[in-house]
Amino acid sequence: MPFDYITYLLSPNETKIVLLIMDGLGGLPLTADGKTELETARTPLMDRLATEGTLGRTIPVRPGITPGSGPAHLSLFGYDPIDYVVGRGALEACGIGIGIKSGDIAVRCNFATVDADGVLLDRRAGRISNSEAQPVVEKLKAIKVPGVDVEVHHVKEYRFTVIMRGDGLFSDIDDTDPQETGVPPLPITAKDPRAEKTAEYFRQWSDQAKAILADEPKANFFTMRGFATNPGLPSFPKVFGLRSACVAVYPMYKGVSDLVGMDVIEFEGESPADEFAAVKRIWDQYDFFFVHIKKTDSMGEDGNFDGKVGIIESVDQALPGLLDLKPDVLMITGDHSTPAKMRSHSWHPVPFLLWAPELVMPDQQTSFGERACALGGLGTFHATQTLPLGLAHAGRLNKYGA
Amino acid sequence: MPFDYITYLLSPNETKIVLLIMDGLGGLPLTADGKTELETARTPLMDRLATEGTLGRTIPVRPGITPGSGPAHLSLFGYDPIDYVVGRGALEACGIGIGIKSGDIAVRCNFATVDADGVLLDRRAGRISNSEAQPVVEKLKAIKVPGVDVEVHHVKEYRFTVIMRGDGLFSDIDDTDPQETGVPPLPITAKDPRAEKTAEYFRQWSDQAKAILADEPKANFFTMRGFATNPGLPSFPKVFGLRSACVAVYPMYKGVSDLVGMDVIEFEGESPADEFAAVKRIWDQYDFFFVHIKKTDSMGEDGNFDGKVGIIESVDQALPGLLDLKPDVLMITGDHSTPAKMRSHSWHPVPFLLWAPELVMPDQQTSFGERACALGGLGTFHATQTLPLGLAHAGRLNKYGA
Repeated sequence: MPFDYITYLLSPNETKIVLLIMDGLGGLPLTADGKTELETARTPLMDRLATEGTLGRTIPVRPGITPGSGPAHLSLFGYDPIDYVVGRGALEACGIGIGIKSGDIAVRCNFATVDADGVLLDRRAGRISNSEAQPVVEKLKAIKVPGVDVEVHHVKEYRFTVIMRGDGLFSDIDDTDPQETGVPPLPITAKDPRAEKTAEYFRQWSDQAKAILADEPKANFFTMRGFATNPGLPSFPKVFGLRSACVAVYPMYKGVSDLVGMDVIEFEGESPADEFAAVKRIWDQYDFFFVHIKKTDSMGEDGNFDGKVGIIESVDQALPGLLDLKPDVLMITGDHSTPAKMRSHSWHPVPFLLWAPELVMPDQQTSFGERACALGGLGTFHATQTLPLGLAHAGRLNKYGA
Repeated sequence: MPFDYITYLLSPNETKIVLLIMDGLGGLPLTADGKTELETARTPLMDRLATEGTLGRTIPVRPGITPGSGPAHLSLFGYDPIDYVVGRGALEACGIGIGIKSGDIAVRCNFATVDADGVLLDRRAGRISNSEAQPVVEKLKAIKVPGVDVEVHHVKEYRFTVIMRGDGLFSDIDDTDPQETGVPPLPITAKDPRAEKTAEYFRQWSDQAKAILADEPKANFFTMRGFATNPGLPSFPKVFGLRSACVAVYPMYKGVSDLVGMDVIEFEGESPADEFAAVKRIWDQYDFFFVHIKKTDSMGEDGNFDGKVGIIESVDQALPGLLDLKPDVLMITGDHSTPAKMRSHSWHPVPFLLWAPELVMPDQQTSFGERACALGGLGTFHATQTLPLGLAHAGRLNKYGA
């Protein structure tokens, strides 16, 4: 992690930093002369914070690159996602809240349909539903492989994950998905001799699974992709000197936070107010609070412009729950853009608001929105600079050099 | 230095470039609705230059990082201070105008008080004054060490520097300051076998010094920190193809200029007008003029908002002395921000003005200030890009590629 210089400069302080992420916050106007979701939303509190604070925009990966949720969050946490690639198997496992330790091997699996000769007919087993897939996954949980502990977890619809834990396991194994039908799945092959033993464990598991699935009408086989272990990311709490808590509803974000060493907080409810109440309960025990709002992204993915506007407004209405805690630095942004117009993640720079009493250089912007942020005082910067900016405004960094 | 491409593109020209640094120029408003020091100052000439030219802001090190003066100037000169670390011993020596060549070893020393057993009682010898310290330093100048030339210079109060010059010297030596009292200073220990001979020279010097200081009431010993040599920075005049002069009052800035190979100009007086007069005298002999104004920073460090405003105004009033020389490119900026409100250096981006007749792309800004610069045509850029921008506007760079 190229932040050795940050760790070296850390200065102890009692200050509190809140990073409030509205997932997929950035948007687009539906018409050429229209406003974005964030520009449309009535957000009197965020507009006040924008007036008192300063605005900018983040680039999550590189200009023009649309990030997935994993890389986008890693970037916000300071890990350049071009340098820190977290295997999809580990992300998938983290995504359902399964802890993966360094040396554990996780792999994403898709149920598939094969013919009598083992040739792939459907790489997603007719996109079978949760209720069809779950009993099949239950059967697979019975498989034992001598030498390793095996876990099997259903993820969603035709997707599941297999995790092996043991000594001397390595993830250098090729995908078995040929990415086309009309051919059999590929054999489980080690890319590196050191992973041969691991590949053999997965072959043994696969042979038993094949026998169990033989009579299934649709899910009579599977493919495996993204063999991965915990990449052993540098510890966020150590790099930035912050006792760090994750307050999130969805497993994926808890998983990424867990991978970087934050404490994942359990709490009841899933509204913004519930999340802010959870922050309040742990306020004295932590220095840094990552608070994640999922539904802005979900609404964007659904193409629901008004729904996304409504979520943003509901966050603004709940904000007093955070502001009453008197954070020293409050940063409000997204991990990436998810314009309702596109129904997908996008590459557009992400609106960013930094509020910190006294130490912020104000700009001339008075509302929180894409075009205000494009003229904001922080300029457009890489998302990995988020934490250094937060630390600086929290009085937690010494001077660099004499 | 990652500017090979610049050197390759250099095109001979007769043009003159002036880089006018007002140290610690960037500021903050004292109140939420207030103006910064630069925004407050009446600067009709700089405002005219801003109108005719273009504005922007520099990041000296990285977003959120507060730079010291050495790193901040290295960055303006094109040397990324994360890549080019100049040891504090060398900076301290340069700071008092002592030339350090590559292979010379300089170390910062603090007088200290120890008890009869050699245990540290005070790591700064009661912060003895200049008048107390100077005679003690004079005694130390008598010490000879066979095999090397030794220089001892008083720096300020309890601080002095020891410089050794000779063959085969290396600076890989641990600090002797234990950073606490109640223990003896650490022995002089080589970090690398190649520095063992150098460490032995310093041990011999230290043993003699100890005997000389034995009867001093306060300064009866010392600690040594930051053993360093001239880091052998790439030559600024060669990299950028500019006969380069430094016009500065304070030793530190002369020192950094000397380290990168500029000619340090001697002159009488210390007002902006005196400095600009010095530039006039050498105008025909150089292509590049680094002119350093110190007192903006001093006033900021003192928390003297109005004083800093006054210094900025005095520079504006003296500016005709520079403009009458008809520079082809005039860049006015700071090395970092020193808001009077904070009484210290800060991480905030630094206002930048580039004026060049004919070749500048004008922006819509008509005054020189933080918020105008945030909206300026050059955007926010790393300070290491200053010289390439200056060279381009001076017609000193060829096209890159066909």
